[in-house]
Formats: sequence, structure tokens, C-alpha cells
Amino acid sequence: MSNNIKLGIIGGGKDSLIGILHRVASGMHSKYEVVGGVFNTEIQKSLQYAEETGIPSERVYKDLDSLIAGELSLPDEEKMQAICVLTPNYLHFSMAKKLVDNKFHVICEKPLTTTYEEAQILEESVRRSRIVFAVTYTYTGYPMVRQMREMILRGDIGKVQKVDVQYYQGWINPIIHDPEKRAKTWRLDPEISGKSCCIGDIGSHAYNMIEYTTNLEVKEILADLNYLYGDNEMDVDGTVLLRFSEYVKGVIRSSQIATGEENNFRVSIYGEKAGLKWEQENPNYLYLLQDGEPLKTLKPGHAYNGELSLSGTKLPPGHPEGIFDSMGNIYHGVAKAINKEGYDPAEFPTIKDGLRGMNFIEKVLESNKQGNVWVKL
Amino acid sequence: MSNNIKLGIIGGGKDSLIGILHRVASGMHSKYEVVGGVFNTEIQKSLQYAEETGIPSERVYKDLDSLIAGELSLPDEEKMQAICVLTPNYLHFSMAKKLVDNKFHVICEKPLTTTYEEAQILEESVRRSRIVFAVTYTYTGYPMVRQMREMILRGDIGKVQKVDVQYYQGWINPIIHDPEKRAKTWRLDPEISGKSCCIGDIGSHAYNMIEYTTNLEVKEILADLNYLYGDNEMDVDGTVLLRFSEYVKGVIRSSQIATGEENNFRVSIYGEKAGLKWEQENPNYLYLLQDGEPLKTLKPGHAYNGELSLSGTKLPPGHPEGIFDSMGNIYHGVAKAINKEGYDPAEFPTIKDGLRGMNFIEKVLESNKQGNVWVKL
Amino acid sequence: MSNNIKLGIIGGGKDSLIGILHRVASGMHSKYEVVGGVFNTEIQKSLQYAEETGIPSERVYKDLDSLIAGELSLPDEEKMQAICVLTPNYLHFSMAKKLVDNKFHVICEKPLTTTYEEAQILEESVRRSRIVFAVTYTYTGYPMVRQMREMILRGDIGKVQKVDVQYYQGWINPIIHDPEKRAKTWRLDPEISGKSCCIGDIGSHAYNMIEYTTNLEVKEILADLNYLYGDNEMDVDGTVLLRFSEYVKGVIRSSQIATGEENNFRVSIYGEKAGLKWEQENPNYLYLLQDGEPLKTLKPGHAYNGELSLSGTKLPPGHPEGIFDSMGNIYHGVAKAINKEGYDPAEFPTIKDGLRGMNFIEKVLESNKQGNVWVKL
Amino acid sequence: MSNNIKLGIIGGGKDSLIGILHRVASGMHSKYEVVGGVFNTEIQKSLQYAEETGIPSERVYKDLDSLIAGELSLPDEEKMQAICVLTPNYLHFSMAKKLVDNKFHVICEKPLTTTYEEAQILEESVRRSRIVFAVTYTYTGYPMVRQMREMILRGDIGKVQKVDVQYYQGWINPIIHDPEKRAKTWRLDPEISGKSCCIGDIGSHAYNMIEYTTNLEVKEILADLNYLYGDNEMDVDGTVLLRFSEYVKGVIRSSQIATGEENNFRVSIYGEKAGLKWEQENPNYLYLLQDGEPLKTLKPGHAYNGELSLSGTKLPPGHPEGIFDSMGNIYHGVAKAINKEGYDPAEFPTIKDGLRGMNFIEKVLESNKQGNVWVKL
Repeated sequence: MSNNIKLGIIGGGKDSLIGILHRVASGMHSKYEVVGGVFNTEIQKSLQYAEETGIPSERVYKDLDSLIAGELSLPDEEKMQAICVLTPNYLHFSMAKKLVDNKFHVICEKPLTTTYEEAQILEESVRRSRIVFAVTYTYTGYPMVRQMREMILRGDIGKVQKVDVQYYQGWINPIIHDPEKRAKTWRLDPEISGKSCCIGDIGSHAYNMIEYTTNLEVKEILADLNYLYGDNEMDVDGTVLLRFSEYVKGVIRSSQIATGEENNFRVSIYGEKAGLKWEQENPNYLYLLQDGEPLKTLKPGHAYNGELSLSGTKLPPGHPEGIFDSMGNIYHGVAKAINKEGYDPAEFPTIKDGLRGMNFIEKVLESNKQGNVWVKL
Repeated sequence: MSNNIKLGIIGGGKDSLIGILHRVASGMHSKYEVVGGVFNTEIQKSLQYAEETGIPSERVYKDLDSLIAGELSLPDEEKMQAICVLTPNYLHFSMAKKLVDNKFHVICEKPLTTTYEEAQILEESVRRSRIVFAVTYTYTGYPMVRQMREMILRGDIGKVQKVDVQYYQGWINPIIHDPEKRAKTWRLDPEISGKSCCIGDIGSHAYNMIEYTTNLEVKEILADLNYLYGDNEMDVDGTVLLRFSEYVKGVIRSSQIATGEENNFRVSIYGEKAGLKWEQENPNYLYLLQDGEPLKTLKPGHAYNGELSLSGTKLPPGHPEGIFDSMGNIYHGVAKAINKEGYDPAEFPTIKDGLRGMNFIEKVLESNKQGNVWVKL
Repeated sequence: MSNNIKLGIIGGGKDSLIGILHRVASGMHSKYEVVGGVFNTEIQKSLQYAEETGIPSERVYKDLDSLIAGELSLPDEEKMQAICVLTPNYLHFSMAKKLVDNKFHVICEKPLTTTYEEAQILEESVRRSRIVFAVTYTYTGYPMVRQMREMILRGDIGKVQKVDVQYYQGWINPIIHDPEKRAKTWRLDPEISGKSCCIGDIGSHAYNMIEYTTNLEVKEILADLNYLYGDNEMDVDGTVLLRFSEYVKGVIRSSQIATGEENNFRVSIYGEKAGLKWEQENPNYLYLLQDGEPLKTLKPGHAYNGELSLSGTKLPPGHPEGIFDSMGNIYHGVAKAINKEGYDPAEFPTIKDGLRGMNFIEKVLESNKQGNVWVKL
Repeated sequence: MSNNIKLGIIGGGKDSLIGILHRVASGMHSKYEVVGGVFNTEIQKSLQYAEETGIPSERVYKDLDSLIAGELSLPDEEKMQAICVLTPNYLHFSMAKKLVDNKFHVICEKPLTTTYEEAQILEESVRRSRIVFAVTYTYTGYPMVRQMREMILRGDIGKVQKVDVQYYQGWINPIIHDPEKRAKTWRLDPEISGKSCCIGDIGSHAYNMIEYTTNLEVKEILADLNYLYGDNEMDVDGTVLLRFSEYVKGVIRSSQIATGEENNFRVSIYGEKAGLKWEQENPNYLYLLQDGEPLKTLKPGHAYNGELSLSGTKLPPGHPEGIFDSMGNIYHGVAKAINKEGYDPAEFPTIKDGLRGMNFIEKVLESNKQGNVWVKL
């Protein structure tokens, strides 16, 4: 029997992009073995998925409660150690809580919950249970994002003075103008998706990225959201002004109606000594801008990168890695934490990041509702 | 004697980049002949500049009043028809006004004046004098900016739903943190430069570009400026939320402390059918983004471009033109207006653009001062 | 027991980039399970590698003969079905031949052998054994390379008239000028690496890519190699003129002394109707050039791509996949072949590609040796 | 009267791109004044052109002989000092020779002549006459090309070991396959254009660029040209292997049937210490590649550039200059030579460059005709 971590998966069946992403990523570093789960609300579909993806069928359960009961009945060396939660947003809280309370390690998709209150309750549970809890802000696993963090923390760009993060997609454009398509889109249904679409789904990535790369905390925000139609309940575009301190400011721009954009997530951080820029669609380049110097483009796998970045690169320079590798790095970090091997806390986002994310989403909605005023985080 | 337009220049002597830009640009289409001017406050330096740049010395004057008197005394076919005003901002108003009142055509650098009130008075004079008055928002002369306008106006991207314009520079970074350098920088001195640095100098370009390319009017703004130090009177960074109508929004981001940036001016306009993007530092590419279609990159000089764009391209595709060519196109348009040849009003920005720009600057300052609130334009 | 293909690995232990690439790639589509192998010439190191990578230790063998004996003694449903050969080049032939003769499916790194003669013998064995034999020209698995092939085959660019492929690396530069480093580099040792370094290692990729994307056969070549030093036996740079027919020509340029280049592999194919360009370091863009049309950039995952391309993309547009995904697609194709599921022969390179590659390498060396003359392939 | 150099122009009338390029470029540094010329074989068209471009009509001549006679009859301070020759290639020699023999300075388009023999005769005349003779290889005036030269000459990349230059256009593609269009294209008519189309027109730029940037001399070449049709007399595509010395090699690739390409001229020079790359379509970037270092992108106008580069930049960083500015820099250099001001010989290409270019063209044709063999230059 291998000493891989036994992983269960909740959700993420057949057509789910997030299912593929997690399954492949968990396998990349040979640290996990998917042993079962609940992939679909219908057991037959779950079993079919297991067969297609080479997951043994014995531990495919009909629902979460059965899974918990079944696994708790197994000897320690056999039972699932970690569970990955990929269900629709509104189920994250109740499912994650049960798992945490039953001492499973949890890898949960974002947003953590649908309300900040739930997130606080969950965080309290995690603290009590002392398990490892990761929230998969996927993009922080990219080697050049990690490098950005390392460079900023060691002072390469000096004191941060300006932050600008963009996350532009266009996928809601062909939907929002078509009432039929709109009605069928779960992301635009607050019952399933939570109170926010654009900010909840992608604005929260932008926010997390800023705090991840700079280690700074946003203190206040002022938000202006766009719903595009009076009968649409969910934001599809939003700009958020950020204040870190009196003279350190920033802006997050997120949109799902930026027609034709795919996943155009860009980060620009300017300090007193230099600036750094990174783009998700070309993730293997990190741009260093310095007054009066040639532009420098850093790439993964070079000895000039820091340890955190290098540990997230599997191949030598010139062999482009992508989003599976980024998520794979997060899984790798979680495995180290579960195995109590030494690791850098920056290797994966935790429930704290999830909690702060929920707070950010609620405060953005509040600022917008009150007429675009400053709200403290 | 050639039938070129006789051009005089006020300001723009020796070390002035703006002087070089206007002088070269005015010569590119063989429509103007620089016949004299006042290049410097010291006549000796003006004469030396004239010698170095091949401008005849006979009509180099000691100051504006002498120039006006001297030129008015000449026969019509000899006297300067148009005067280009390149002096520091605070002199624009008084000089332009005298010239307008004496029936010279005027090509004035932006910002038009230092206050909106002055701009209104000047506009009134221009209306009375019926001369041609151009304000040199340089970037609207680029062929691919013109193409952007043509495509939007003919409906290629559908109804505009989101506008995002960035103008990031880093040149103030090495100055603002150094009190000595800061004290010597005229852009940071409100006496010379007007009330605003970043918004006045570059934010106003962003605003003009939006109205130029979309033909839409911004109705309300909410601004957040950054002065970086308590003892600095001039904004060096600012984000401005824009509202065109209830569901059409946008954002302008401008900064002069985006360390390491050169002249990173980018325009993104997203409509219901497509998006368009353009960047000043690579001005010969226009990106067309459509849901589910390959990204299209349009370039100057191709038959697929509109008439306004093509008229601003001198060479076949693959021969990169630059900023002199953009300004040259503006001069070309002004020449057509002076010569009463048919022209597209989009060939050069007028006093209306200058006036709206001054209004924008003042309203941005007002919004910021009042605590980042919405202000109607 | 899962119905995954049982995979064994020969070579590719600890420090081997190629080992990581194959192991991760084989796992990406949940079609294989690594059950054992010979990772190192020392069994202890093999066992340690197995432990670190979660491979069961029971079927870690001391050498290839033991592996073959051991596996053949197992019941059919348990024994290894496919073996992946990642040993140094000079061992490929003898090992692959034994495996083939014992009816294992083989996935072999390139170059297939060290001589064309060996390659012919091996091909004969494969034909007799009727097993699946793949040669891992990694780059043909990229979705946009597959798309290139599909577009060319269906006539999108018309008759091909010009082919230009570059493969530039710089990694030998810091080695070749340093006799000590040079002596320690196995790629520069003909005993281990075969007769050619640059052409064998990367020029052969370029050649394979041309035949893959165009479906054309190179008829004649003229080569000019550079050894840089008189006492260096292995080519480190070479240009090869190609002739497909009297009026269809091309060129391959390959170098390992293109200082500072990483893995700059670029393909340009020009036809009578359009041109196509692709770059390995930014593999998710395919450029379509047409006379008088905007440049079009195609990206993976869009419905406008062909079936072969789409089947190689796991996530929606905007989620960059990389080299593991390319190799993963090749493994996926091989699995379909082993499982006798329908597949497109373009899903993986076979022994035919390996054989042609060896012929190309030998003919390039011959042309160069004879003074840069035309040699028929 | 200004002290500008009085310039005459032969050829380049109305529809000529080269006419626009020279006229605008000559005016950019305020060093020349176009005083007349022969723009067309019909005097009426010449006069009309003069009127449209603001050139005085008095010195518009009906042909070259009249021009020479007319100008020689004028007092020294009035007569044309320099003449720009923009006529079809086959006229360059006879016209330039007359001008040289009459002691006019000459600025001649490339190719210098139609045969090497003519070029030698002309060079002899130039030597006797001691006038300034420039051959306008336009691209060597770009600031980042000059920077490339400065860096290579001062040893920044170490000993050059590999040169690769590409010049790809697609404009002949829609012509060559259409017999009617082909018959009307003067570039494909050897009577007008000389013996070579692709090599003569653009391959010669590539060759000149290599010798300009590296200061190395190509010693031997082996060429493979493509005529695409048996009844086409002019090469439209060609690859040329280069040998500088036994172990320093290179390749020029030029094509006019690279469908969809515009003016894709790229230079890559690799040395023992670093590599440099530049692309004409994005001329304001110079890439410095060093083993194990971040990629560096140099841009014009920065203090890190050398004197030759900086003298060719008129505006601060971030203000893109283009091809007019490159040609303008060449005119500027010629003006310095005419005015006997200190100048760097690298500021403009001379008759030596033109002569070497003609030799290159003839040797390429010879190598190709003899079956792609090595020919000494």
C-alpha cells in the first residue's frame, strides 16, 4: 500500500471544469490517491464517473453523510484523510463544517461560504478541530506569483505605493442580454451562487492576490457595481477602490461583461523602488520595472528565483507549465501540511484567506448599496 | 512663394520635447512653414534656436505683444496665419486669448487653461472670432485610434457597456520621494502647472480619448486622488469612476508614480457585440475581441480600415509610424480646416475638447476634496 | 481493481526532467497506473524513487531482464501492459527491442535509436509484434499544433509553398567554451548520445513537426552544421535546407548555442492562401496570416477549433495549459490505441516517425560531411 | 536665407512610398530644404507634385540633364548641394554617376545599381569626386539597431558565434499566382528592377544589417532561391547560408511569398556572452538574452543607451518613433557629413555598403545557379 494521502472528492462530476482541475492537480506530485467520494447527486452517475476516471467504485457514496459514516468506520490507515469540496457555492458551508467537525482535512473551492457569518462559524470549527483547511484560490500557486510575493516581501520594490488588479472575463456577455440564457445560468442565481456573481467569483481572486503578493491588508473599500439590467439580481461588473493607509491606494477592476475577454487576470504592484506585473493568461512571465533600467522579464525555473517559486516549478526554463501546475502546487503544499513536513505557509491559501474573502464580498456589496461610500473591512 | 500655411510658434524652445514634437509634426505633410515666433523669454536664446532649427531670424520676436504687432503690420499674404502655443500651462489662457482676439488661428497644447472659467471665456472668444482653434490631445491622431472611433460609431461593437482607460507613468517616482528634486519640478508647482498634476496632465488625455472614440459623454464622476505626501499640493495618482448612464459605467486610472512605467496609455472599450483595445506604446495594433471568435489584430494602412484611419497613414502596412505621425495627422487636419478644404471634424480636437477637459479636471478635484462623492460633469 | 493501463517505467529516475514529464503526463487523463519499473541502475535508488513518488515497491526491478521475466510470470490482468523507455539514447534500441519482442506496448523517448539501421530493425520487430509503439515527440500534443495540422489538411492555407522552423536553445553555450564542463556533458558524448547532439536532440523535433503539421514529406536536404571547436565531436548548431518538390522549399534552423534562448521552437508554414505560425514557449496561440486581413490569433478550447485540437484541451479558454498537457495528450492517444478505442492516428507519433527521424539525422550528417551538398531522404 | 542644405529630388513622385519617406525624413531635423527636382518623367506631373507638397516650382526640371545644367548655372550659395535619387533601380547607376561627376552630394536608394560592375565604376567616381554618397538602407537608422551595434562593438555579447536574420514579406503572394498581375509588377521585371527581386530588394537589407550591427564581414555564401514558377525570371524567396570564419556561421532568410507577412524583418545575433534580438515591426525594443539572467528589454531614449543610439532619439521614453524617424536619422547623419560636422560613420550607409550589397546579390545568384554551392564574396 502506498503512503499517498487518501483523498475523497465531493462534487466535481462529469462536466465540471473544476472537477477536472482538482483531480488532475491532486495527482501531479504523486502525493494523493483519489479513493472515492460523492461526485453527483445521483449515485449511478457517480459510479459512472468513477469508472471513467479510474477511481475505485467501492467507496463511491450516495451522499456526504454516508461518506462520513462509511469512512469513519474504516481503520485509520485506510480511511480518507482529506476531502475536496467542489459542490455549488451554497453547499460549501454545511458540507465543509460536517467534514471539519469529523476531523477530515478539507480542500474547499472558493468562495468559502455564501455569507461572512457562515465563514466565521466555519473558521471557529477549524480552529477547534486543528485540521488542515485549504481554500483553492488557484492562481497563487503559479511560480511567478510566488516569485512576486518573495520579491515584494524581501523589499525588491520598496514600500508599495500603488496596487492595480484587473480580472476581466466576457463570458456573461452573450448570456446577460438573452433572458432565456440568463434564467438558466446558475452563477446568476443567488440561491445557488450566493449574493454576488462578479465580485464573488473573480473579484475575490483579485483581492486575495493583492494580500497574497504584498502581505498588506486592505483597510477600506469603495465599490461601484454594475448589474446591467434592472431585473438582474447579480453584479456582473465592478470597480473597487482600495485604501491600505492614507497614502497607499489601489483599485480592483473585475468584469464578466468585458466582451471577448477570456480570463484576463492581471496584477500590477508599484513600489518606491520598482514595479512588478503579471498576467494569468501568460503566467510564466513576471515583469520587473525600474526607473531608467531595461525592463526585466523573469521566468520560472531559473536560479534567480526564490525558493518558494522554484519549489513550484517542475521542469527547466522554456517548458511552459500552466494552470494544472499552479493548482498542483497548492495540493503539494497541503500534502506537506497534512504530512507535517516543513512548508512555507504561502504554499496554499487557508481558511483565513477564505474568511477575509467573504468579508470583502459583503463589504463590497454594502458599499455599493449605500451609494458607493467607503466601508471599513 | 509657396502656398504653405505660415506658422508661428510661442514657447517650445531648445530643451522642450513638446517643441520638437510640434515642429516636426507641422512639417510632415508639407502644409506649414514655420516663419518665426517667440521660443524663449530671452530673445538671444530664441534667435539661437531659430538658427539651429533653420527658422528665418527676421520674425523672431521678443514677446507675444511684439509678435502680434509685427505680424499685423505685414501684408495678408505674408503674415502668420496660425500660431502654436507651447508655453507653460498658466500662460495658455492669456496668450491664446490675445491671439484669438487678433484673429490668428491657434494650435494650443493641453490643458487649455488653468481653470474652467478661463476656458469658458476663451471658448466665447473663439466663437466670436470664428478662427480655427485646435487643442493638441496628441493621441487621437493615431490611425488605430481613429479606426477605433470609426468602428464604434458604425456599430461594430454594439452598444458600449464598459469603458476602462489607463494612463500610467512612473517619472514622478524618483522625484516625489526626494524633497529637493520635488521643489524643482514645475509640474508639481500649481502656480505654473495649474491645480492638478496627474489628472491635468494625463488623466485629461484618458477622458478625451473616451469621448473621442465612443462619442459618448461622461455624465458623473467619482474620484480618488493620491498626493503621496501631506506637504505635496499636487495629485500624482488618481482613479476616477465614470457613469455614462445608469447601466453604462467606466473607470479612468492614471498615475505618475507607477514606478518604471513609461507612457503606458491603454484604452479598452467593451460593447454588447465586441470589445476593442489599444495601447499607446504599440500604437499600430488594434485588438478586436468577439465572443467565441479568434482575436483579431488590425494594423494601419490596410483596406479594411476606415477612411479616417487610412488618411492618417502615409506608408503601406509593416512600416511602423509613431507619435510624430499622430501629431502630424492633427496638424494636417487643422491645415484642411484653415484652408477650408473638406475634413472630418474627428481629424483634430477643438476648443470644445479643451473646455470639456478643464471641466473634467475641476470636477475630479471637487469629488476628491468632498470625500470621493459623485459629481455631475 | 481499476481498469487503468498498467504502466512500467525504465529510466527517468530522480533528477530526470524527462522522468517527471512522463510520470505526470501519464497520470493526467486517468488512463494509466504506474505499477513499477527500473528507475535507476542501482536498485536502492530505484526503490527510494518509488517511495517518493508513490509507486508500489513490489514491482521495482533491478534491471530490464528481471522486469521482463517478472512481469511475464504474472497473470494477464495484473502484468504491465505498456513500458515507457526513458534511458539514455544509446540504450533505446536494445531495450525497446526486447520489450517489443516480448509483446509489451512501448512508449519510447526520441531519438528512437542511435542509427537508422537499428531503427529499421526495430520497426520490423514492431510490425511483427503488432504492439502499440509510440515515440514521444512531445510537442505534437499541443492543441494549437494539432489545430495547425487540421487547418492545413483541410486546405485553410492552400498549397504549402514555404516552411520555416526554428529550434533555438542556449544551454550549451556556457558548456562548450569550458573544457571541463564540456567533458562532463553526456549530450556531447557520442557514446551515450548518438552521432549528433543538436540535430539529434532538437533538429529532429523540427523535422517531425513539419511532417506532422503539413503531412508533406521532405525529399532532399542540404545541411550546414557547426561544431564550434575542432576538438568537439558533436554538432551544436545547424541549418538544413529542405526541398519538398521543385518549387516547395523550406529551412530548419536549430541551435544549442543561441545564447540566452530557452526552448524557442517556432513553426511557420506559408501557403498560397494563408500562413500559420506557432511558438512552443507560448503554446496557446496560433497565428493565422492572410493577405489584407487582420491577423487572427486562435486559442485552445474554442468551438472554432477542430476535433483533434479540442480533444486535447481540458479546460475552457483562458486557462493556460502547458507541456505536461501536451505530453498528457500523447499518452491519452496511446491509451486509446492500447484499449482499441477509436482514435485519430495524429494523436501520437509512432515508430514510423521515429524511423524517419533517424533517417533525417543520418542524412543531415552525411550532407554536412560531404561539404554541404543535397542528399535525398 | 536659411543655412539649410538645399536638396533636390529625382523620382519619388505622387504615388511613391519611397518619395514620401525621403521627403518627410529629410525635413525632420530641420537640416534640409527641398528646392526642386525631377519628380516625374512628365513635367506637368512634376509641377503638380511640387505644388501639392509645397516645393517651389521654379526649380522643377524636365529631366536630369536640365537639372544639372540649371543648377550648375546658379551661384554656389543657391544651388542644390545634395540630390536624392529615387528612380527605378535600373536608372540609379547612370543618374548617380552624372551627379557624382558634377560634384553633387548624392543620397541614393538601394540597390545602388543593377550590377556589381556598375557599382564598382560608381564607387571609383565617388572616390575621385570626394562628395558625400549615402545609400539608404533605411533600417540602420533605428535607435535600437544603432544600440545593437554599439553593444556588439564594445563587447557586450562577446565573440559573435551565430547570426540569423529574417526578412519575410507576403506581398508577392497574391501576385505571383496570377499571371496578369505578375506581368504588371515592375519588381518582377528584370529590365527595371535588376537581376533579383527578393534578394535584391530585401535580402540585401538583411546582409547590410548583419555587417552594420556586427562589423563582421561575410566571407562565403551558399544560396537556395525559389522562383515558384518556371516562367518567372525573378527570385521571390531565398535562404542564404553564411560563413564568417570556420566556426562562425549564420543564415539569411528572405521571402516575399511568406503569405500574410508585412515587413517582418528580424535580427538575432548570438555571442559567447549574450544574444541580441530586434524586430523591425516593433522597432523600439531590443532584447538582451543572457544565460541564467532575466530577459532584458532595452528601449530608446534611456541613459543606458549609447551615444549613437541616443542621438537618434528625439523624444523621451514611451513616445514611439517609427520608420520616418529612422530614415530621418540617416538624413541627419548625411547633413553632418556635408556640413563637415563631427559624426560617427555609423550614422549613414555609404557607397561601400551599396557596393558590398551588389556583390552579395550577384554572388547569391551565382551560388544558386551553380546548384547551391559555396561562393566567396
